[in-house]
Amino acid sequence: MTQHEGGPAPSRRALLGWGGAGLALGAAAAGGAAAVARTNDDPNSTASSAVEFHGAHQAGIATPVQDRLHFAAFDVTTEDRGEFAAMLKEWTAAARRMTAGKPVGDGAFGGLAEAPPDDTGEALGLRPSRLTLTIGFGPSLFGKFGLAGKRPEALVDLPRFPGDNLDKSRTGGDLCVQACSDDPQVAVHAIRNLARIGFGKAAIRWSQLGFGKTSSTTPGAQTPRNLMGFKDGTRNIAGTETDRLKKFVWAAAADGGANSAWMSGGSYLVARRIRMNIETWDRASLQEQEDVFGRDKGVGAPVGKSKEHDAPFLKAMKPDAHVRLAHPESNDGATILRRGYSFTDGTDGLGRLDAGLFFLAYQRDVRKGFLPLQRRLSASDALNEYIQHVGSAVFAIPPGVRDKDDWWGRTLLTEEG
Amino acid sequence: MTQHEGGPAPSRRALLGWGGAGLALGAAAAGGAAAVARTNDDPNSTASSAVEFHGAHQAGIATPVQDRLHFAAFDVTTEDRGEFAAMLKEWTAAARRMTAGKPVGDGAFGGLAEAPPDDTGEALGLRPSRLTLTIGFGPSLFGKFGLAGKRPEALVDLPRFPGDNLDKSRTGGDLCVQACSDDPQVAVHAIRNLARIGFGKAAIRWSQLGFGKTSSTTPGAQTPRNLMGFKDGTRNIAGTETDRLKKFVWAAAADGGANSAWMSGGSYLVARRIRMNIETWDRASLQEQEDVFGRDKGVGAPVGKSKEHDAPFLKAMKPDAHVRLAHPESNDGATILRRGYSFTDGTDGLGRLDAGLFFLAYQRDVRKGFLPLQRRLSASDALNEYIQHVGSAVFAIPPGVRDKDDWWGRTLLTEEG
Repeated sequence: MTQHEGGPAPSRRALLGWGGAGLALGAAAAGGAAAVARTNDDPNSTASSAVEFHGAHQAGIATPVQDRLHFAAFDVTTEDRGEFAAMLKEWTAAARRMTAGKPVGDGAFGGLAEAPPDDTGEALGLRPSRLTLTIGFGPSLFGKFGLAGKRPEALVDLPRFPGDNLDKSRTGGDLCVQACSDDPQVAVHAIRNLARIGFGKAAIRWSQLGFGKTSSTTPGAQTPRNLMGFKDGTRNIAGTETDRLKKFVWAAAADGGANSAWMSGGSYLVARRIRMNIETWDRASLQEQEDVFGRDKGVGAPVGKSKEHDAPFLKAMKPDAHVRLAHPESNDGATILRRGYSFTDGTDGLGRLDAGLFFLAYQRDVRKGFLPLQRRLSASDALNEYIQHVGSAVFAIPPGVRDKDDWWGRTLLTEEG
Repeated sequence: MTQHEGGPAPSRRALLGWGGAGLALGAAAAGGAAAVARTNDDPNSTASSAVEFHGAHQAGIATPVQDRLHFAAFDVTTEDRGEFAAMLKEWTAAARRMTAGKPVGDGAFGGLAEAPPDDTGEALGLRPSRLTLTIGFGPSLFGKFGLAGKRPEALVDLPRFPGDNLDKSRTGGDLCVQACSDDPQVAVHAIRNLARIGFGKAAIRWSQLGFGKTSSTTPGAQTPRNLMGFKDGTRNIAGTETDRLKKFVWAAAADGGANSAWMSGGSYLVARRIRMNIETWDRASLQEQEDVFGRDKGVGAPVGKSKEHDAPFLKAMKPDAHVRLAHPESNDGATILRRGYSFTDGTDGLGRLDAGLFFLAYQRDVRKGFLPLQRRLSASDALNEYIQHVGSAVFAIPPGVRDKDDWWGRTLLTEEG
């Protein structure tokens, strides 16, 4: 630390003759004003509003997709179950405030000047920006704290699929937090403050920034395009489709076996970092590209159809077309809710962009969702020529935090299995 | 490449009985419609408009700062001067179209289905999003193509400053392109398409994604905060300050010595990747943080003052306060135009976020701007405890492209020195 004590220049407070009380008041007033600024939304701007943190399900799954993502996987470093639970409670309190557009703690810079600020500050003055924070528990967590008996059967370890080239430093994790927001600074701020609160109890294992559509620059409700230039997500489950969410996304008490009642109202998340060989793709012909997807590139219509939302006629596509192979019809009805974001993480040292899709899929049971789907795709998808899975993780996403007294992980850590 | 010839499923075109002519027409129509969508702006959305590409100066310097950045440095791999000039002309034509919100080429998917598309497609349907593309020439370029005699004296090689810990893979470059836009996908699309066009002639050496304020989520014209939580850029040169721009930013014919008349109307760019040790910073007391900057964290007022835009009284600050040391008064008037973006690039393998500031500074002469400033800061700045410069590059930014017949680099490659 830089030491300034005894330096020749007086501090601002000494100059102003502020005592500790005056300082605390000044800081609280500044923090309060900032908190107001973060919640004083422009009613015309949907991008700026707050998403309700409490509910039967965690926000960030069926919530309309925000523009930006910061996803972090953590390793739990404490071996004390009580300390772990205390951290989760502190995280919940911070998440409750941040998603409402408020700084962590009682005010951004409350407390003493001699202490670190309660909040790191870079989101002050920014709107809530539809921030959602969604927590998940990885398979490795169930090897700790006597939780083995509560591991849901639906939370399977993923096998090595053909073509997988997983980087250990981008794979796995005891915990995850998915931060989605229309403002990347708000999402980054949230993960950073949770990491700060977790210092000494949990450490970031890997993290991923992602971008998607931009509310301010994408007209209407267009289907966004992935970095291969194709519309992606045309037939995804919308957050308003209650029946499909219930059938394919939300875990019911009995789903995961006798030991997973605590997951009722939760879901299961598969995260895959999918690198695209975009330089190779960009040199492929339009015909090849459209054959690979099974849709046309301009309007996104399935092969043989003219409009994006026309029902695909699978047999008109090449047998190895991506849309054909991934369709529920080809997979005994297996359906997932996708929430992917594009990424571009500099270059790979070989003059190529390190870019692709950070794929996030929510499902009621991994064994009936991603697992059969990826078995088929990894074996046969024409797209495999142009992509590579380089990171992977799976998490049990617990149910929502019910009210202000509830906390992330309560059903896991306190209820009977 | 995946080979589909002779596969059992007929292609969409075969099914529809489309011939080549019909296909070309269909593709052109689709491309045309997309081009219209990208330029048909909502007049209420300033975030969606186009920035004029042509002018005396390149856009992206005095242009009001856009929300997102994708910056790329390239190595020139061709040894043929004519081929290099041809690439620059092709880049200019593509940049002219992309900044206007149009796809590269005559239409997104014009041409033959057997050829790769003219445009990679992921920005179709997106608005121009204030995209600017700004090219620069690094010192190493002047060692090629017989250009040694045209290297401006103002384009100095930066010395190794105390504390520098430069990563070669994030340093230098023959060329740079700065893409700024309110939509990251538009910025990423632009760099990616230039890289695609340059294939075999120039290869990406490194690239950096950055984020800043968000028009849609930041109320009014607030000064954005850096990842240390402090307002950053309070006293920066605004794009409307013609006199200060002329004095400190735009190169005049005689500035760089006799060999730099071709730079008249241009500028010089210093790019530094500044990693922040945010975990350490987050554990520093509020007092320490405010002493380091010389401003308070809440409202951003200089030490001893109450409002952000109050003129700083430097002697009230600690002698090593960042604001005090960086102020023109402390540096014989040295003034730069800053255009930095925050970055968060995952983790560093040690459980810490790889986050910080991608610092971009424009100036009339590096010897009178960044060089003296950084000599002072690197020697004495209290902030050095919490930051590290890990990437560095310097570029000569040529003047603007005057009209539709002009091109990037014309004054360098065709005019007398």
